[in-house]
Amino acid sequence: MVLNEKGVEFELIQEEFWKQRKEFIRLNPASEVPVLIDKSNKFHIADVMAIYEYLEEKHTNKSLLGSTLEMRAEVRRVTNWFNNKFYHEVSRYIINERIIAYYARKSAPNSQAIRAAKINIHYHLEYINFLLKQRRWLASEYITIADFAASVQLSVLDYLGDVPWEQYINVKNWYSVLKSRPSFRSFLQDKITGFEPSLHYKNLDF
Amino acid sequence: MVLNEKGVEFELIQEEFWKQRKEFIRLNPASEVPVLIDKSNKFHIADVMAIYEYLEEKHTNKSLLGSTLEMRAEVRRVTNWFNNKFYHEVSRYIINERIIAYYARKSAPNSQAIRAAKINIHYHLEYINFLLKQRRWLASEYITIADFAASVQLSVLDYLGDVPWEQYINVKNWYSVLKSRPSFRSFLQDKITGFEPSLHYKNLDF
Repeated sequence: MVLNEKGVEFELIQEEFWKQRKEFIRLNPASEVPVLIDKSNKFHIADVMAIYEYLEEKHTNKSLLGSTLEMRAEVRRVTNWFNNKFYHEVSRYIINERIIAYYARKSAPNSQAIRAAKINIHYHLEYINFLLKQRRWLASEYITIADFAASVQLSVLDYLGDVPWEQYINVKNWYSVLKSRPSFRSFLQDKITGFEPSLHYKNLDF
Repeated sequence: MVLNEKGVEFELIQEEFWKQRKEFIRLNPASEVPVLIDKSNKFHIADVMAIYEYLEEKHTNKSLLGSTLEMRAEVRRVTNWFNNKFYHEVSRYIINERIIAYYARKSAPNSQAIRAAKINIHYHLEYINFLLKQRRWLASEYITIADFAASVQLSVLDYLGDVPWEQYINVKNWYSVLKSRPSFRSFLQDKITGFEPSLHYKNLDF
Protein backbone atom coordinates (compact mmCIF):
# COMPACT_ATOMS: atom_id res chain seq x y z
CA MET A 1 0.00 0.00 0.00
CA VAL A 2 2.79 2.41 0.84
CA LEU A 3 4.41 1.57 -2.52
CA ASN A 4 1.08 2.22 -4.25
CA GLU A 5 0.61 5.53 -2.42
CA LYS A 6 4.06 6.64 -3.48
CA GLY A 7 3.49 5.50 -7.07
CA VAL A 8 6.37 3.02 -7.06
CA GLU A 9 6.02 0.00 -9.35
CA PHE A 10 6.43 -3.34 -7.66
CA GLU A 11 5.68 -7.03 -7.90
CA LEU A 12 4.26 -8.95 -4.94
CA ILE A 13 5.84 -12.36 -4.31
CA GLN A 14 4.14 -14.68 -1.83
CA GLU A 15 6.37 -16.64 0.50
CA GLU A 16 5.33 -19.50 2.79
CA PHE A 17 7.76 -18.13 5.35
CA TRP A 18 7.03 -20.77 8.00
CA LYS A 19 8.71 -23.33 5.72
CA GLN A 20 12.01 -21.51 6.29
CA ARG A 21 13.22 -21.96 2.72
CA LYS A 22 17.02 -21.72 2.48
CA GLU A 23 16.93 -19.04 -0.23
CA PHE A 24 14.45 -17.00 1.79
CA ILE A 25 16.53 -17.24 4.97
CA ARG A 26 19.43 -15.82 2.98
CA LEU A 27 17.24 -12.76 2.30
CA ASN A 28 15.98 -12.60 5.88
CA PRO A 29 17.55 -14.74 8.62
CA ALA A 30 14.40 -14.21 10.70
CA SER A 31 12.41 -15.97 7.94
CA GLU A 32 9.61 -13.46 8.34
CA VAL A 33 7.69 -11.35 5.86
CA PRO A 34 7.82 -8.69 4.55
CA VAL A 35 11.16 -8.40 2.72
CA LEU A 36 11.74 -5.58 0.22
CA ILE A 37 13.94 -6.24 -2.82
CA ASP A 38 14.97 -3.01 -4.52
CA LYS A 39 16.14 -3.81 -8.05
CA SER A 40 17.40 -0.26 -8.65
CA ASN A 41 20.36 -0.75 -6.30
CA LYS A 42 20.27 -4.54 -5.81
CA PHE A 43 19.49 -4.05 -2.14
CA HIS A 44 17.18 -6.05 0.06
CA ILE A 45 15.91 -5.35 3.55
CA ALA A 46 13.63 -7.06 6.03
CA ASP A 47 11.50 -5.71 8.89
CA VAL A 48 8.35 -3.76 8.17
CA MET A 49 9.48 -0.59 9.96
CA ALA A 50 12.92 -0.60 8.29
CA ILE A 51 11.08 -0.96 4.96
CA TYR A 52 8.69 1.94 5.68
CA GLU A 53 11.58 4.23 6.69
CA TYR A 54 13.62 3.17 3.65
CA LEU A 55 10.73 3.95 1.28
CA GLU A 56 10.07 7.23 3.08
CA GLU A 57 13.72 8.31 2.69
CA LYS A 58 14.01 7.11 -0.90
CA HIS A 59 10.69 8.27 -2.34
CA THR A 60 10.18 11.75 -0.97
CA ASN A 61 7.37 12.68 -3.38
CA LYS A 62 4.70 12.07 -0.75
CA SER A 63 5.41 11.90 2.96
CA LEU A 64 3.51 9.33 4.95
CA LEU A 65 5.42 10.05 8.14
CA GLY A 66 4.60 13.64 9.08
CA SER A 67 6.24 17.04 8.75
CA THR A 68 7.46 17.83 12.28
CA LEU A 69 9.68 16.01 14.75
CA GLU A 70 6.79 15.51 17.16
CA MET A 71 4.39 14.30 14.47
CA ARG A 72 6.88 11.75 13.18
CA ALA A 73 7.43 10.45 16.71
CA GLU A 74 3.69 9.96 17.20
CA VAL A 75 3.33 8.30 13.78
CA ARG A 76 6.13 5.86 14.62
CA ARG A 77 4.66 5.14 18.04
CA VAL A 78 1.22 4.29 16.63
CA THR A 79 2.71 2.35 13.71
CA ASN A 80 4.73 0.18 16.10
CA TRP A 81 1.66 -0.27 18.27
CA PHE A 82 0.09 -2.17 15.39
CA ASN A 83 3.25 -3.82 14.05
CA ASN A 84 4.18 -5.13 17.48
CA LYS A 85 1.51 -4.89 20.16
CA PHE A 86 -1.51 -5.66 18.01
CA TYR A 87 0.43 -8.35 16.17
CA HIS A 88 1.53 -10.13 19.34
CA GLU A 89 -1.79 -9.75 21.16
CA VAL A 90 -4.15 -10.51 18.29
CA SER A 91 -2.96 -11.30 14.73
CA ARG A 92 -0.20 -13.73 15.64
CA TYR A 93 -2.65 -16.06 17.40
CA ILE A 94 -5.08 -15.99 14.51
CA ILE A 95 -2.43 -16.36 11.80
CA ASN A 96 -0.64 -19.20 13.60
CA GLU A 97 -3.73 -21.08 14.64
CA ARG A 98 -5.96 -20.61 11.64
CA ILE A 99 -3.77 -20.04 8.58
CA ILE A 100 -0.37 -21.65 9.29
CA ALA A 101 -1.99 -24.57 11.13
CA TYR A 102 -4.13 -25.17 8.02
CA TYR A 103 -1.15 -25.13 5.65
CA ALA A 104 1.00 -27.22 7.94
CA ARG A 105 -1.92 -29.68 8.23
CA LYS A 106 -1.72 -29.48 11.97
CA SER A 107 -4.56 -31.39 13.58
CA ALA A 108 -6.73 -28.73 15.21
CA PRO A 109 -6.20 -25.05 15.98
CA ASN A 110 -5.52 -24.14 19.60
CA SER A 111 -8.88 -22.73 20.61
CA GLN A 112 -7.45 -21.06 23.73
CA ALA A 113 -5.14 -18.90 21.58
CA ILE A 114 -8.00 -17.95 19.26
CA ARG A 115 -10.17 -17.08 22.25
CA ALA A 116 -7.42 -14.83 23.64
CA ALA A 117 -7.15 -13.04 20.30
CA LYS A 118 -10.91 -12.52 20.14
CA ILE A 119 -10.89 -10.95 23.60
CA ASN A 120 -7.80 -8.82 22.95
CA ILE A 121 -9.11 -7.38 19.68
CA HIS A 122 -11.75 -5.39 21.59
CA TYR A 123 -9.09 -3.53 23.55
CA HIS A 124 -7.38 -2.56 20.29
CA LEU A 125 -10.58 -1.55 18.49
CA GLU A 126 -11.40 0.63 21.49
CA TYR A 127 -7.95 2.18 21.23
CA ILE A 128 -8.46 2.95 17.52
CA ASN A 129 -11.80 4.47 18.47
CA PHE A 130 -10.07 6.60 21.13
CA LEU A 131 -7.46 7.81 18.61
CA LEU A 132 -10.10 8.66 16.01
CA LYS A 133 -11.89 10.87 18.50
CA GLN A 134 -8.81 13.09 18.65
CA ARG A 135 -7.78 13.24 15.00
CA ARG A 136 -8.93 12.41 11.51
CA TRP A 137 -6.49 9.56 10.94
CA LEU A 138 -4.82 7.30 13.49
CA ALA A 139 -1.69 9.33 14.14
CA SER A 140 -2.42 12.79 12.72
CA GLU A 141 -4.80 14.89 10.65
CA TYR A 142 -3.23 13.27 7.59
CA ILE A 143 -3.02 9.69 6.44
CA THR A 144 0.27 8.09 7.51
CA ILE A 145 2.02 4.72 7.68
CA ALA A 146 0.22 4.21 11.02
CA ASP A 147 -3.09 3.83 9.15
CA PHE A 148 -1.54 1.34 6.74
CA ALA A 149 0.14 -0.62 9.53
CA ALA A 150 -3.19 -0.92 11.36
CA SER A 151 -5.14 -1.83 8.24
CA VAL A 152 -2.64 -4.53 7.24
CA GLN A 153 -3.24 -6.24 10.59
CA LEU A 154 -7.00 -5.75 10.38
CA SER A 155 -7.37 -6.88 6.77
CA VAL A 156 -6.16 -10.43 7.53
CA LEU A 157 -8.64 -10.71 10.39
CA ASP A 158 -11.37 -9.12 8.27
CA TYR A 159 -10.73 -11.66 5.51
CA LEU A 160 -11.42 -14.42 8.02
CA GLY A 161 -14.47 -12.58 9.38
CA ASP A 162 -12.88 -12.04 12.80
CA VAL A 163 -13.46 -8.30 13.24
CA PRO A 164 -16.58 -7.30 15.26
CA TRP A 165 -17.11 -4.12 13.20
CA GLU A 166 -20.70 -3.53 14.26
CA GLN A 167 -19.66 -2.63 17.78
CA TYR A 168 -17.19 0.01 16.54
CA ILE A 169 -18.90 2.19 13.95
CA ASN A 170 -16.21 4.91 13.91
CA VAL A 171 -13.52 2.33 13.36
CA LYS A 172 -15.58 0.73 10.62
CA ASN A 173 -15.99 4.10 8.90
CA TRP A 174 -12.26 4.83 9.08
CA TYR A 175 -11.46 1.39 7.64
CA SER A 176 -14.08 1.80 4.96
CA VAL A 177 -12.54 5.08 3.72
CA LEU A 178 -9.11 3.45 3.73
CA LYS A 179 -10.42 0.45 1.82
CA SER A 180 -11.78 2.62 -0.97
CA ARG A 181 -8.37 4.18 -1.69
CA PRO A 182 -6.85 3.00 -4.98
CA SER A 183 -3.73 1.88 -3.08
CA PHE A 184 -5.81 -0.57 -1.07
CA ARG A 185 -7.85 -2.08 -3.87
CA SER A 186 -5.26 -4.47 -5.27
CA PHE A 187 -4.97 -6.04 -1.83
CA LEU A 188 -8.66 -6.82 -1.79
CA GLN A 189 -8.07 -9.05 -4.82
CA ASP A 190 -5.55 -11.19 -2.92
CA LYS A 191 -6.77 -14.53 -1.73
CA ILE A 192 -5.52 -16.86 0.94
CA THR A 193 -5.57 -20.27 -0.76
CA GLY A 194 -7.93 -22.61 1.06
CA PHE A 195 -9.92 -19.82 2.69
CA GLU A 196 -12.95 -17.98 1.37
CA PRO A 197 -13.00 -14.29 2.28
CA SER A 198 -15.78 -13.11 4.59
CA LEU A 199 -18.87 -11.88 2.73
CA HIS A 200 -18.14 -8.17 3.17
CA TYR A 201 -14.36 -8.40 2.59
CA LYS A 202 -14.36 -6.78 -0.86
CA ASN A 203 -17.44 -4.69 -0.25
CA LEU A 204 -16.39 -1.04 -0.04
CA ASP A 205 -19.62 0.03 1.67
CA PHE A 206 -19.82 -2.90 4.01
CA MET B 1 22.80 4.99 26.66
CA VAL B 2 21.83 6.79 23.45
CA LEU B 3 21.22 9.95 25.52
CA ASN B 4 24.64 9.52 27.13
CA GLU B 5 26.32 8.97 23.76
CA LYS B 6 24.74 12.13 22.42
CA GLY B 7 25.66 14.09 25.54
CA VAL B 8 22.07 14.95 26.46
CA GLU B 9 21.33 15.45 30.14
CA PHE B 10 18.54 13.34 31.53
CA GLU B 11 17.05 11.88 34.64
CA LEU B 12 16.01 8.24 34.83
CA ILE B 13 12.65 7.54 36.49
CA GLN B 14 11.77 3.96 37.34
CA GLU B 15 8.22 2.86 36.71
CA GLU B 16 6.57 -0.38 37.83
CA PHE B 17 4.72 -0.41 34.53
CA TRP B 18 2.87 -3.69 35.19
CA LYS B 19 0.88 -1.87 37.89
CA GLN B 20 -0.72 0.24 35.13
CA ARG B 21 -0.70 3.42 37.16
CA LYS B 22 -3.33 5.88 35.87
CA GLU B 23 -0.82 8.75 35.48
CA PHE B 24 1.54 6.47 33.58
CA ILE B 25 -1.18 5.22 31.24
CA ARG B 26 -1.87 8.85 30.41
CA LEU B 27 1.75 9.10 29.23
CA ASN B 28 1.63 5.76 27.43
CA PRO B 29 -1.67 3.92 26.93
CA ALA B 30 0.31 0.71 26.34
CA SER B 31 1.66 1.04 29.91
CA GLU B 32 5.09 -0.06 28.71
CA VAL B 33 8.55 1.37 29.21
CA PRO B 34 10.43 3.31 27.93
CA VAL B 35 8.70 6.68 27.70
CA LEU B 36 10.70 9.81 26.88
CA ILE B 37 9.67 13.13 28.43
CA ASP B 38 11.32 16.07 26.67
CA LYS B 39 11.15 19.11 28.94
CA SER B 40 12.45 21.47 26.24
CA ASN B 41 9.20 21.27 24.27
CA LYS B 42 6.90 19.60 26.84
CA PHE B 43 6.58 16.58 24.60
CA HIS B 44 6.42 12.94 25.57
CA ILE B 45 6.65 9.85 23.43
CA ALA B 46 6.56 6.09 23.99
CA ASP B 47 7.98 3.17 22.00
CA VAL B 48 11.70 2.51 22.00
CA MET B 49 12.12 2.88 18.22
CA ALA B 50 10.09 6.11 18.09
CA ILE B 51 12.35 7.41 20.89
CA TYR B 52 15.57 6.46 19.07
CA GLU B 53 14.42 8.14 15.87
CA TYR B 54 13.28 11.23 17.76
CA LEU B 55 16.65 11.58 19.50
CA GLU B 56 18.46 10.95 16.22
CA GLU B 57 16.49 13.68 14.46
CA LYS B 58 16.73 16.14 17.35
CA HIS B 59 20.36 15.67 18.41
CA THR B 60 22.31 15.50 15.19
CA ASN B 61 25.75 15.98 16.81
CA LYS B 62 26.54 12.27 16.59
CA SER B 63 24.69 9.86 14.32
CA LEU B 64 23.97 6.42 15.71
CA LEU B 65 21.93 5.39 12.68
CA GLY B 66 24.33 5.38 9.72
CA SER B 67 25.19 7.70 6.85
CA THR B 68 23.58 6.03 3.81
CA LEU B 69 20.06 4.90 3.00
CA GLU B 70 21.13 1.25 2.91
CA MET B 71 23.11 1.47 6.15
CA ARG B 72 20.19 3.04 8.01
CA ALA B 73 17.87 0.30 6.73
CA GLU B 74 20.23 -2.39 8.03
CA VAL B 75 20.64 -0.60 11.38
CA ARG B 76 16.86 -0.40 11.78
CA ARG B 77 16.42 -4.05 10.82
CA VAL B 78 18.97 -5.27 13.39
CA THR B 79 17.66 -2.87 16.05
CA ASN B 80 14.13 -4.18 15.62
CA TRP B 81 15.45 -7.75 15.69
CA PHE B 82 16.46 -7.13 19.30
CA ASN B 83 13.59 -4.83 20.28
CA ASN B 84 11.01 -7.28 18.96
CA LYS B 85 12.25 -10.76 18.08
CA PHE B 86 14.78 -11.14 20.90
CA TYR B 87 12.37 -9.53 23.34
CA HIS B 88 9.47 -11.85 22.48
CA GLU B 89 11.58 -15.00 22.20
CA VAL B 90 13.84 -14.48 25.21
CA SER B 91 13.66 -11.40 27.47
CA ARG B 92 9.90 -11.28 27.87
CA TYR B 93 9.79 -14.77 29.37
CA ILE B 94 12.60 -14.01 31.79
CA ILE B 95 11.28 -10.57 32.80
CA ASN B 96 7.71 -11.80 33.27
CA GLU B 97 8.57 -15.00 35.07
CA ARG B 98 11.48 -13.90 37.18
CA ILE B 99 11.18 -10.16 37.84
CA ILE B 100 7.49 -9.25 37.51
CA ALA B 101 6.40 -12.52 39.14
CA TYR B 102 8.66 -11.66 42.09
CA TYR B 103 7.24 -8.14 42.48
CA ALA B 104 3.66 -9.28 42.00
CA ARG B 105 4.33 -12.02 44.60
CA LYS B 106 3.06 -14.63 42.19
CA SER B 107 3.52 -18.10 43.62
CA ALA B 108 6.18 -19.65 41.40
CA PRO B 109 7.68 -18.72 38.03
CA ASN B 110 6.53 -20.71 35.02
CA SER B 111 9.51 -22.97 34.47
CA GLN B 112 8.41 -23.89 30.94
CA ALA B 113 8.65 -20.25 29.85
CA ILE B 114 12.08 -19.87 31.44
CA ARG B 115 13.24 -23.08 29.75
CA ALA B 116 12.03 -21.78 26.36
CA ALA B 117 13.96 -18.53 26.89
CA LYS B 118 17.12 -20.43 27.82
CA ILE B 119 16.89 -22.48 24.63
CA ASN B 120 16.03 -19.51 22.41
CA ILE B 121 18.90 -17.36 23.67
CA HIS B 122 21.41 -19.67 21.93
CA TYR B 123 19.86 -18.97 18.54
CA HIS B 124 20.21 -15.24 19.17
CA LEU B 125 23.77 -15.42 20.49
CA GLU B 126 24.69 -17.41 17.39
CA TYR B 127 23.08 -14.71 15.26
CA ILE B 128 25.10 -11.99 17.02
CA ASN B 129 28.19 -14.12 16.40
CA PHE B 130 27.27 -14.40 12.71
CA LEU B 131 26.83 -10.62 12.43
CA LEU B 132 30.14 -9.93 14.18
CA LYS B 133 31.98 -12.10 11.65
CA GLN B 134 30.89 -9.70 8.93
CA ARG B 135 31.41 -6.33 10.61
CA ARG B 136 32.94 -4.67 13.61
CA TRP B 137 29.64 -3.76 15.30
CA LEU B 138 26.25 -5.44 14.95
CA ALA B 139 24.86 -3.45 12.04
CA SER B 140 27.86 -1.68 10.52
CA GLU B 141 31.55 -0.82 10.95
CA TYR B 142 30.44 1.85 13.42
CA ILE B 143 28.58 1.64 16.68
CA THR B 144 24.83 2.23 16.17
CA ILE B 145 21.53 2.01 18.02
CA ALA B 146 21.49 -1.70 17.04
CA ASP B 147 24.35 -2.34 19.50
CA PHE B 148 22.54 -0.46 22.24
CA ALA B 149 19.23 -2.22 21.53
CA ALA B 150 20.94 -5.61 21.78
CA SER B 151 22.89 -4.71 24.91
CA VAL B 152 19.78 -3.42 26.69
CA GLN B 153 18.15 -6.82 26.21
CA LEU B 154 21.30 -8.69 27.19
CA SER B 155 22.09 -6.57 30.25
CA VAL B 156 18.89 -7.60 32.06
CA LEU B 157 19.64 -11.27 31.42
CA ASP B 158 23.29 -10.75 32.35
CA TYR B 159 22.23 -9.16 35.63
CA LEU B 160 20.33 -12.34 36.47
CA GLY B 161 23.23 -14.51 35.28
CA ASP B 162 21.25 -15.96 32.37
CA VAL B 163 23.71 -15.41 29.50
CA PRO B 164 25.95 -18.38 28.60
CA TRP B 165 28.89 -16.11 27.63
CA GLU B 166 31.55 -18.80 27.73
CA GLN B 167 30.15 -20.51 24.67
CA TYR B 168 30.24 -17.29 22.63
CA ILE B 169 33.63 -15.63 23.06
CA ASN B 170 33.21 -13.15 20.18
CA VAL B 171 29.88 -12.03 21.55
CA LYS B 172 31.39 -11.71 25.02
CA ASN B 173 34.22 -9.55 23.64
CA TRP B 174 31.80 -7.29 21.76
CA TYR B 175 29.66 -6.88 24.91
CA SER B 176 32.73 -6.28 27.03
CA VAL B 177 33.89 -3.38 24.79
CA LEU B 178 30.39 -1.93 24.89
CA LYS B 179 30.24 -2.25 28.67
CA SER B 180 33.42 -0.24 29.11
CA ARG B 181 32.02 2.79 27.26
CA PRO B 182 31.26 5.74 29.55
CA SER B 183 27.67 5.76 28.25
CA PHE B 184 27.15 2.24 29.59
CA ARG B 185 28.72 2.66 33.01
CA SER B 186 25.85 4.42 34.76
CA PHE B 187 23.59 1.51 33.84
CA LEU B 188 25.88 -0.91 35.59
CA GLN B 189 25.15 0.95 38.83
CA ASP B 190 21.42 0.30 38.50
CA LYS B 191 19.99 -2.39 40.68
CA ILE B 192 16.82 -4.43 40.45
CA THR B 193 15.45 -4.31 44.00
CA GLY B 194 15.26 -7.80 45.46
CA PHE B 195 17.83 -9.27 43.08
CA GLU B 196 21.57 -9.42 43.47
CA PRO B 197 23.45 -8.91 40.20
CA SER B 198 25.48 -11.86 38.89
CA LEU B 199 29.11 -11.86 40.07
CA HIS B 200 30.57 -10.55 36.79
CA TYR B 201 27.79 -8.02 36.08
CA LYS B 202 29.83 -4.89 36.88
CA ASN B 203 33.16 -6.45 35.99
CA LEU B 204 34.42 -4.79 32.81
CA ASP B 205 36.91 -7.58 32.07
CA PHE B 206 34.59 -10.42 32.96
